[in-house]
Amino acid sequence: MTHLDERGRARMVDVGAKAPTRRAALAEGFITLGHEAYDLAKGGGLPKGDLLAVARLAGIQAAKWTPHLIPLCHPVPLDEVTLDFEWDDTSRAVRVVAGSRAEGKTGVEMEALTACAVACLALYDMVKGVDKEAVIGPIALLKKSGGKSGDYRRRGRLSPCPTPKGAPAGKGRR
Amino acid sequence: MTHLDERGRARMVDVGAKAPTRRAALAEGFITLGHEAYDLAKGGGLPKGDLLAVARLAGIQAAKWTPHLIPLCHPVPLDEVTLDFEWDDTSRAVRVVAGSRAEGKTGVEMEALTACAVACLALYDMVKGVDKEAVIGPIALLKKSGGKSGDYRRRGRLSPCPTPKGAPAGKGRR
Amino acid sequence: MTHLDERGRARMVDVGAKAPTRRAALAEGFITLGHEAYDLAKGGGLPKGDLLAVARLAGIQAAKWTPHLIPLCHPVPLDEVTLDFEWDDTSRAVRVVAGSRAEGKTGVEMEALTACAVACLALYDMVKGVDKEAVIGPIALLKKSGGKSGDYRRRGRLSPCPTPKGAPAGKGRR
Amino acid sequence: MTHLDERGRARMVDVGAKAPTRRAALAEGFITLGHEAYDLAKGGGLPKGDLLAVARLAGIQAAKWTPHLIPLCHPVPLDEVTLDFEWDDTSRAVRVVAGSRAEGKTGVEMEALTACAVACLALYDMVKGVDKEAVIGPIALLKKSGGKSGDYRRRGRLSPCPTPKGAPAGKGRR
Amino acid sequence: MTHLDERGRARMVDVGAKAPTRRAALAEGFITLGHEAYDLAKGGGLPKGDLLAVARLAGIQAAKWTPHLIPLCHPVPLDEVTLDFEWDDTSRAVRVVAGSRAEGKTGVEMEALTACAVACLALYDMVKGVDKEAVIGPIALLKKSGGKSGDYRRRGRLSPCPTPKGAPAGKGRR
Amino acid sequence: MTHLDERGRARMVDVGAKAPTRRAALAEGFITLGHEAYDLAKGGGLPKGDLLAVARLAGIQAAKWTPHLIPLCHPVPLDEVTLDFEWDDTSRAVRVVAGSRAEGKTGVEMEALTACAVACLALYDMVKGVDKEAVIGPIALLKKSGGKSGDYRRRGRLSPCPTPKGAPAGKGRR
Repeated sequence: MTHLDERGRARMVDVGAKAPTRRAALAEGFITLGHEAYDLAKGGGLPKGDLLAVARLAGIQAAKWTPHLIPLCHPVPLDEVTLDFEWDDTSRAVRVVAGSRAEGKTGVEMEALTACAVACLALYDMVKGVDKEAVIGPIALLKKSGGKSGDYRRRGRLSPCPTPKGAPAGKGRR
Repeated sequence: MTHLDERGRARMVDVGAKAPTRRAALAEGFITLGHEAYDLAKGGGLPKGDLLAVARLAGIQAAKWTPHLIPLCHPVPLDEVTLDFEWDDTSRAVRVVAGSRAEGKTGVEMEALTACAVACLALYDMVKGVDKEAVIGPIALLKKSGGKSGDYRRRGRLSPCPTPKGAPAGKGRR
Repeated sequence: MTHLDERGRARMVDVGAKAPTRRAALAEGFITLGHEAYDLAKGGGLPKGDLLAVARLAGIQAAKWTPHLIPLCHPVPLDEVTLDFEWDDTSRAVRVVAGSRAEGKTGVEMEALTACAVACLALYDMVKGVDKEAVIGPIALLKKSGGKSGDYRRRGRLSPCPTPKGAPAGKGRR
Repeated sequence: MTHLDERGRARMVDVGAKAPTRRAALAEGFITLGHEAYDLAKGGGLPKGDLLAVARLAGIQAAKWTPHLIPLCHPVPLDEVTLDFEWDDTSRAVRVVAGSRAEGKTGVEMEALTACAVACLALYDMVKGVDKEAVIGPIALLKKSGGKSGDYRRRGRLSPCPTPKGAPAGKGRR
Repeated sequence: MTHLDERGRARMVDVGAKAPTRRAALAEGFITLGHEAYDLAKGGGLPKGDLLAVARLAGIQAAKWTPHLIPLCHPVPLDEVTLDFEWDDTSRAVRVVAGSRAEGKTGVEMEALTACAVACLALYDMVKGVDKEAVIGPIALLKKSGGKSGDYRRRGRLSPCPTPKGAPAGKGRR
Repeated sequence: MTHLDERGRARMVDVGAKAPTRRAALAEGFITLGHEAYDLAKGGGLPKGDLLAVARLAGIQAAKWTPHLIPLCHPVPLDEVTLDFEWDDTSRAVRVVAGSRAEGKTGVEMEALTACAVACLALYDMVKGVDKEAVIGPIALLKKSGGKSGDYRRRGRLSPCPTPKGAPAGKGRR
């Protein structure tokens, strides 16, 4: 593992000898909500609110915070961060797709994944008043490009994590 | 939803009238790795390294960073942050349990969940050189105490997210 | 001036002997736009977008950053931050009203003013592609309460800063 | 508006296809003080203190903090930040001129404007003990250069915002 | 050691059961300069500049940043931070004394020491153009009060670190 | 001094006209502990813990925070940060060596020195429960390369600061 040396010590990899190349990454994440929270979040009948805007901005800002959150990450001057959301009524899940682009010596996977995770956390924060059972995940890389390890595209699909068995959403409180 | 007003606008809830009480939260998260990455991470035969220390510190620091990451979160003076890790050989997953405590006017669920998520991201960062298929999740609240909404303990168990079908770990590259 | 000692040296005032009291502050700010930018920002005929949500979140987040932005400010655990916006068609201005509340040893005027200023900057950022002539100001305290200096309410009204003479909005480019 | 997509959703513009060019921006801002505060701030008869140094450093630091304050701003590696101050005895105003330079894919207007605004806020913070009536503004771009939209220089002059009518400085307290 | 558990794992100590008490700490640090740099820094014949103001503000800001810099530190709402400087012509050293106060569950030693260290680093940054031989240290706690471990006052005096033997200040360049 | 103008005002030097070159810096620092703390820290007989991992990560993170900690520092995209530790039983000191690399317009000395200082502070934080007499220093530059001022290597050796006379470690408490 490149982030640990031969004695297991953490290190920030030396990327000094690498030339900057165009990098892109796309990550996806999910948050599954209980019935009540899902309906409220999706805004049935109500004015379209700031819910997704809050999650989007939280994700964009988090992408820029990545090198300060992930200890061994290099700072990368981001060219673009995108956050898109899809409502999956069947699973009662919000799917978050985060993209990051930069011209740099290292990849931008961590920026996309961090944006995804923090957008999900921001959604959790907003629904937690009505639903403590919300479950975040899976969060995973969809694809990346650029760099000497080449392009990558994940095979297979991910499904939103179900809420836990025996825990009907919004009913777990004592 | 308390974080959106009647017109759907984001707001930071007024907690001025609340008295500070002892608050605690416990969250759990998982990251499932491919065979090679799991064995390397667990350190088969190698000197015990900094891998978990990096994830632990990333989680502790992220808990303190929560009000700057989650837009509508209140700042809370944390009394304690804990990060514990378990190796689940069957699922090839690391289970992360994060705890947070404070004496405050709002709960500390977001601090525990953020610690969990960022610890998983830090683990992803360290293994991504050998395993881009790692999957983070589920991440969810285990229990909380304090505050007027009372104590909460989740029923049911969560299982680590499997790696995607058709995507044997470490084989997805082109 | 309390922030400079008798030799003019900057200092962070010692508030150790003060008891925490309920504090509130309300600040207002304006940004005046050119015709095209004002109409676009207000969203004539278009889907209601994230413009004000971005400014609102920028302001809320900035309030929490205040002690790190304003060198001699004390950290204060904010109980609430609010950001409200009004469209003033006559002046082509957006009026920003920011409120802050805390139970602390120092006032929260700087938090409200910083929220105001950064919300205006965020609006500027979003319209600058079509309007470099936008003018921010005035930004001023509306009222405050709490603390030993007592309550304060500003007399008089402020008007949005006009765009500069001889500079029809959006026409100043060479 | 480039920062909102066709459906009004906030986005960080993709600057990946742009080549870095030399960028510069100059912004100006004002803070108008009451008589007592202006005289104290200007230091009549007293040792020259840290007042302007505090504002200057607050502005420089804020310029570096810009991408974390303004949600849709790209990070830019700043080559230079300057802060200059002029005392305008007639208006009892301090004029702040902030300059920023970088070699980047996006302009540095927001860095100069943010430096200006935060320097004014830092000045407000230092005088607020004697003058709650201080008014910040106008804050506006003076000129910019670099980038494909070409150079820009504002026509017309801005005057410091007056303190509100009916509110003699330093007399508004109850 | 309280910051490591019985298996050597880092932890943030649980201070939840402690009552907040008045805390104070005083730390001192030194930076020894070469002849040329010392004279320039002290400002022989020149207008009194911002040098110490920069170091003072860097120290104050760093004290507020402490929980984000020192991984296992608790956030503490600081009541006061002071930075004082003395010129020691004999040793060509600047002595930095940093004080911190808070009402909290943990001590504020780290805040005072961090303020000291960062003020020294800021001084180094300003003189490094003329003197790469500057040496920072010793940095140590002078005294602390509050908390259950009681008051502490260091016995003995510290002297500024000399510049290295064989390395006349300002002459080590090749 | 380049960081102050002819009137002594702080400034961030304009590096816009400089071409980026490969930069490296190496700094060293020491922390001297009392007997008990030194033995505990070195882990006599105990499981190898996270102590050095905490200090290493604190140093790496601090290097990335440098432009926000040191007011007049330029942001530099770091290619690598290294932290190494040596136990000096004779002096009861830990020697910290921090390295930084980047391709930039300014040197990376401050990043290496800041990493060193913060790693020492993190060590202090972990031992302070058993040893308030720990002394940090000297901290100094070992060498640097790149940039127009050329390479530099310090002559002479530095020795760890002794604990103060009359102050046997761990005995100074009242």
